[in-house]
Amino acid sequence: MFQQSVQLAPRKRGFHLITREILQTIPELQTVKAGMCQVFIQHTSASLTINENADPTVRVDFETWFNKAVPEDDPDYIHTDEGPDDMPAHLKAALLGSSVHIPVANGKLALGTWQGIYLCEHRNHGGYRKLVVTVWGS
Amino acid sequence: MFQQSVQLAPRKRGFHLITREILQTIPELQTVKAGMCQVFIQHTSASLTINENADPTVRVDFETWFNKAVPEDDPDYIHTDEGPDDMPAHLKAALLGSSVHIPVANGKLALGTWQGIYLCEHRNHGGYRKLVVTVWGS
Amino acid sequence: MFQQSVQLAPRKRGFHLITREILQTIPELQTVKAGMCQVFIQHTSASLTINENADPTVRVDFETWFNKAVPEDDPDYIHTDEGPDDMPAHLKAALLGSSVHIPVANGKLALGTWQGIYLCEHRNHGGYRKLVVTVWGS
Repeated sequence: MFQQSVQLAPRKRGFHLITREILQTIPELQTVKAGMCQVFIQHTSASLTINENADPTVRVDFETWFNKAVPEDDPDYIHTDEGPDDMPAHLKAALLGSSVHIPVANGKLALGTWQGIYLCEHRNHGGYRKLVVTVWGS
Repeated sequence: MFQQSVQLAPRKRGFHLITREILQTIPELQTVKAGMCQVFIQHTSASLTINENADPTVRVDFETWFNKAVPEDDPDYIHTDEGPDDMPAHLKAALLGSSVHIPVANGKLALGTWQGIYLCEHRNHGGYRKLVVTVWGS
Repeated sequence: MFQQSVQLAPRKRGFHLITREILQTIPELQTVKAGMCQVFIQHTSASLTINENADPTVRVDFETWFNKAVPEDDPDYIHTDEGPDDMPAHLKAALLGSSVHIPVANGKLALGTWQGIYLCEHRNHGGYRKLVVTVWGS
């Protein structure tokens, strides 16, 4: 069982591919023949998901859709003290989730050809984001 | 590998913080230096997620948003035999998910400062809810 | 730690119960007293979730709701090269997730009475879908 804390540099609001950065933090993964890798984000207004790793327009459309589905200007929100982007950020984070789990096979993440790990930054100024990467297996 | 079934007392429809209750069910977690904790809910109209543990208005706004996003009165639903809150409950449960997975470090859940575990009760009268808590590691 | 790649035959767009098919691929699960089973999908326009295993109208209503919530005809999408069902498929996949994780107890999946595993096919012609099933425990 390998476990590593990671701090990601601030990103602008939106969806960001971080697969390579994750892999660099946990070289022990290469010693695992069959196992599992979890990436966990220790925040409630940013999240993680797995999606298309090639065309960056997918990530732009993610931001577009989530902004429509979880609008900032809903007068029914009562948790508004931390700004208009705060409550939508919590909701988006819950929809996408705070962790991803990828099988490890022969020392590599068993991702599909088109899959990558996204950091989903839902705040306008989210700052540094802390992750915990855990790998286990045999 | 520690595994424990848990039954939660009925809660009213909405989002409820259950971190402390979960921790009490599995004291063996304190013996794990590096590992993982999964909480799984054995139902399809209630769910689990991780979000803000401090201001209770966040949990109120969760209920507000999910009720708008997954309305009860959609005439297109055909699964309506169990009442107007049933089909929306299934959809909300799928959006949020039936399990949460939190790294364990030095005998504690490696949650961020503001993170807690939510029981998301999507039925008007959901009753007792059964969970399975599993912890593994070294 | 048991790990098995699986290829599912093409399904039409919609939500499909695949619990039995998954169990057949990994008979070693029956030897696990306390553990965990992950099913991971290696695609970004199909997904996995856990929901009602009995009334098939639930799965029809899932398709109805997701088509409304993530419409095909949004003129704001810019990732449109692969057809109108492609970008919505990526978004639906992110909302539902690329893996499910079910506790294993006494050689069986510790699912609730009404829970089953869904393959969520979001493309009109998704083709074969590759999964990785991983089981671990003691």
